[in-house]
Amino acid sequence: MPVPELRPRDLLVKVAACGLNPVDTKVRSKKTDATLTEPKVMGYDGAGVVERVGADCSLFKVGDKVYFAGAIDRQGSNAEFVAIDERIVGHMPKTLSVTAAAAQPLVLLTAWEGLVEGLGLTAFNPANQGKRLLILPGGGGVGSYVIQLAARVFGLEVIATASRPESADACKGLGATHVINHREPLQPQLKKLGIESVNFIYNAFDTKVYFDQYADIAAPLGKIVSIVETDAPLPMTKLMSKKVSFAWEFMFTRPMFGVDQGFQGFILNEGAKLIDTGMLKLPQVKALPFDVKSIREAHLEQESGKVIGKIVLTREAGEVGTFAPGSRV
Amino acid sequence: MPVPELRPRDLLVKVAACGLNPVDTKVRSKKTDATLTEPKVMGYDGAGVVERVGADCSLFKVGDKVYFAGAIDRQGSNAEFVAIDERIVGHMPKTLSVTAAAAQPLVLLTAWEGLVEGLGLTAFNPANQGKRLLILPGGGGVGSYVIQLAARVFGLEVIATASRPESADACKGLGATHVINHREPLQPQLKKLGIESVNFIYNAFDTKVYFDQYADIAAPLGKIVSIVETDAPLPMTKLMSKKVSFAWEFMFTRPMFGVDQGFQGFILNEGAKLIDTGMLKLPQVKALPFDVKSIREAHLEQESGKVIGKIVLTREAGEVGTFAPGSRV
Repeated sequence: MPVPELRPRDLLVKVAACGLNPVDTKVRSKKTDATLTEPKVMGYDGAGVVERVGADCSLFKVGDKVYFAGAIDRQGSNAEFVAIDERIVGHMPKTLSVTAAAAQPLVLLTAWEGLVEGLGLTAFNPANQGKRLLILPGGGGVGSYVIQLAARVFGLEVIATASRPESADACKGLGATHVINHREPLQPQLKKLGIESVNFIYNAFDTKVYFDQYADIAAPLGKIVSIVETDAPLPMTKLMSKKVSFAWEFMFTRPMFGVDQGFQGFILNEGAKLIDTGMLKLPQVKALPFDVKSIREAHLEQESGKVIGKIVLTREAGEVGTFAPGSRV
Repeated sequence: MPVPELRPRDLLVKVAACGLNPVDTKVRSKKTDATLTEPKVMGYDGAGVVERVGADCSLFKVGDKVYFAGAIDRQGSNAEFVAIDERIVGHMPKTLSVTAAAAQPLVLLTAWEGLVEGLGLTAFNPANQGKRLLILPGGGGVGSYVIQLAARVFGLEVIATASRPESADACKGLGATHVINHREPLQPQLKKLGIESVNFIYNAFDTKVYFDQYADIAAPLGKIVSIVETDAPLPMTKLMSKKVSFAWEFMFTRPMFGVDQGFQGFILNEGAKLIDTGMLKLPQVKALPFDVKSIREAHLEQESGKVIGKIVLTREAGEVGTFAPGSRV
């Protein structure tokens, strides 16, 4: 692949590691009538070093270590170089290797935006006290950050869902007060815990399948945010008498429409501080070598839906391996 | 009807006038399998004088003039006396007659809650500058307050919809910058005005019918609030790529679930100040005598869907008549 052309606010980043996400496999499998005029480079998450800056760049300089989640309508990070708008890039957490850093941006942004915008939460707000959030499922990359941000920054009681003991353990380790099983009906499990309703629901799995259950367990004036699209229309009026709101979180909206992109740079920079101080622990990371065989393996594993934490492809031979939740990699 | 029993936080109010709303006719026509154990008293909006206070009341005293929108699961205001929780009652605006006051609470609460909670707006916030709100339709009671609050308190550019010249005039008189026709496709009319998209949509008509159009005209990160239920499921994923949220406004949620009821008393008291200082003008009011014949006439007119402003039944013989928007009655 040729080195990409830079737009005025683009950085050229030499990619040292890239993170995998469910969106990668969704984009790969998407049927389209369009004929591609150039090969589509997959991958969004990445970390590396700024190699060159565009004419109007002001936030980074050559040599800066950066991490980013990218834009869905541009070429991706599964390449040697990526061109990316500096407004959606963050300075890499100082305490992380590039391999660990490459796993964080997309899930950190998705969790943060979903909590702040979709659920309207504000940090250190006494009104959050005693309120409950359900995250379904808690074991993935997004769930890992939702649990931690909700419990530590927003001060909520967190109920995570998991279907396997190792995921349940991971959720508890990150700050979930309760873990229930999303393969069983939710309401009876909550009732057993003495929980009548939840104020906030973060849905990261199947919006259509869980919608009716969410309508039942949501508290009056509750809020739901979801990151999973559905072909099925939703029976929204079930949310009306309790006045429950519904929002989408889609990390790519800002770069796609060119709206308020600086909020993403802000989240990545603030998130790096929370990581460096130990306030946010990392999800489990499984790092594979940065080659075609690994990409195929990673996509298959991602499609299985059983990934705990995150998968990363890395050019750092010494960083290949699986790192437990919270470890610095 | 016997004088109702008081709960500890109830006021007994002698009703001088009561306001009609679309919800009255919806409740009347609702088919139900339940057998009523006592006659259902219709009506929610009302104004009158506190006749007695419950054991735990602290916010009002006997003789206070009050206005209120009531609770959907209790007996209504089309009666001589109504029992109502003091937390959802406000002190009547000092500059209004009881007839004018009785027309305000339900629409004021619905507009205010919808804007503040459903659309997440905060007053005097510089971030609102240059943002646009569409209210469909603008001519009714709710629309009248949405236009004024959005334009004057939240500082938005307001586009109202109307299908008749007299409604369009009313909308402009209340602060709408533009008026378009909701019987014609919305997007081409907006484009003619040079408007690509709107940040906020307040839907007070038919949620299902307008949903697809809203998905098209909503700006990225936009918000929709609706007050009209629908049997049809909604194609919510159309809102995803732009990350547009959807919320319900239902004024009866708070009293029905006993949640945060004091916010309604707050809105009615603050709203009274805005009315008394002239910051909020009243919708047009048509006042009929407080008798069974008028109730029937008012319900028929409400069902026609062509009411501009509000219909009130009043016991004050001198206040029967139609009062133009903004007049004090």
